[in-house]
Formats: sequence, structure tokens, C-alpha cells
Amino acid sequence: MLTNVEHIGIAVRDLAASNELFTKLLNVGPYKSEAVESEGVTTSFFKVSQTKIELLEATNPDSPIAKFLDKKGEGIHHIAFEVDDIRAEMERLKGEGFTVLNEIPKRGADNKLVCFLHPKGTNGVLVELCQEIRE
Amino acid sequence: MLTNVEHIGIAVRDLAASNELFTKLLNVGPYKSEAVESEGVTTSFFKVSQTKIELLEATNPDSPIAKFLDKKGEGIHHIAFEVDDIRAEMERLKGEGFTVLNEIPKRGADNKLVCFLHPKGTNGVLVELCQEIRE
Repeated sequence: MLTNVEHIGIAVRDLAASNELFTKLLNVGPYKSEAVESEGVTTSFFKVSQTKIELLEATNPDSPIAKFLDKKGEGIHHIAFEVDDIRAEMERLKGEGFTVLNEIPKRGADNKLVCFLHPKGTNGVLVELCQEIRE
Repeated sequence: MLTNVEHIGIAVRDLAASNELFTKLLNVGPYKSEAVESEGVTTSFFKVSQTKIELLEATNPDSPIAKFLDKKGEGIHHIAFEVDDIRAEMERLKGEGFTVLNEIPKRGADNKLVCFLHPKGTNGVLVELCQEIRE
């Protein structure tokens, strides 16, 4: 089950400037910033009720975010849905014909296990599944 | 105050096919469909906790959705935030330097008054404000 829109990821060129912009828009500041080295990004998070807005800045030219910015410019990058059991959900979705971009859940920002679905199978929407790491 | 991510709008070419696809993805069907003639769209809505996924199909070639599809293809079109008082929020945001695309709130889908912000001022993200019509 996809139980919630956990966050919406937005690709930005200049995280400091976008933090200011989104603070004005949302009338609240970011509550944390986090680097995810494996993805080549620095992120910051804003909270709007049950959903987070995640701003993503690339830290190197090979980062998926750098490639997205080159191709499409700044804008919405992905939607992340919360799931209780990411492995079970990946199996269910593969059975429905969706393609996962990583066969094994990987560690993402914000203490999550994450898996992305190929946007060619989801009307051009990059969908992330994320499950809180419980340890 | 932007109190909630009310919905995420996704532009699609074939609403019937995308209804099927998103039913598989979300494991729940759309709970309603609605035509918004003024915007040249037919919409369908899925519910994921407090947030709706709104699929948008163009009904004519002049529809903003038809233009978006021509330019960018299928994908995420906008994020809509719920507000208590849309006029007050529009004034606040104009004071912060944002540009509204309509000076007067207009009637959108799902019994809402809506206003869009110009994406050039919001990192390429088309932001909608929406307020439930209370009559």
C-alpha cells in the first residue's frame, strides 16, 4: 500500500537561494539539510502537514539531479510515496508490470529505504517508494 | 498559510489508460471524474491519505494541458496547496515578490477557488493555491 505522499522532490540549481524562496512561499523555513553522497545531492526539507518538500541540489556533474537540470531545468523531480513494507510493494508493482530502477532498496535521505520506478512506465512521473528504516 | 499538499496534478494523454495505470500503482481506483470546461480538461481524482492525485487530460488543443504535453510530454504538471483564505494568501505572496497568473481567484475542479503562481518565480514549479468554496 502507498499510504501517504511522503515528499515531493524539486531540483534546484542554488540550494541557498531556493531555501529563501521556499521559505517565503511556504511561510516556514527548512527544518533540516542533509547530504546524500551516494546520490550526489544536498537536500533540504520543509514540512507542510503530512508531506515534505525536498529541495535537491547536485554536488557533482554526474549526479542524477545535474543531468535532470541540464535536460529539463529546475522543477518538480519526483513524488515519493510512503510504504509500510518496501520489498512487498516492489514485488506487487513488478507483478503489475512496473519497472524498478533498483532491484534492492537503497538508503536515501531522511532515514529511508528507497526504490524508484522507471518513469516510462508511470506516465513520465518519477515515482519513489520509501520506507522508514526501523532499527 | 499553505496548510496541506491538497493535490498533485499530472498531465496525461489518455485518461482512460492512465486511470488503469494509476489504479495499479496506487492499488485503489479513482473516486471521481470531473470536466472543467473553462480549463479545457477532464480530470480524475485518486486519494492517498490527505493528498489527491489529479490526472488531467486536455479536451481541446488550446487547453493549457495540451500545450504542456506538446512541450514537455506526460508528467507532473503542478502542486496544489490548500489555503484557508486564498485572497489573503495571494496578497501575502505578491508582497513577497511572487507573480499570480490570475488576479482574481477562479473556480477550479473539486469545488475550489484557485490561483496559480508564475513558475518563473518558483524554481520552475507551477504552484496552485486552492481554497474550498464554502457557501
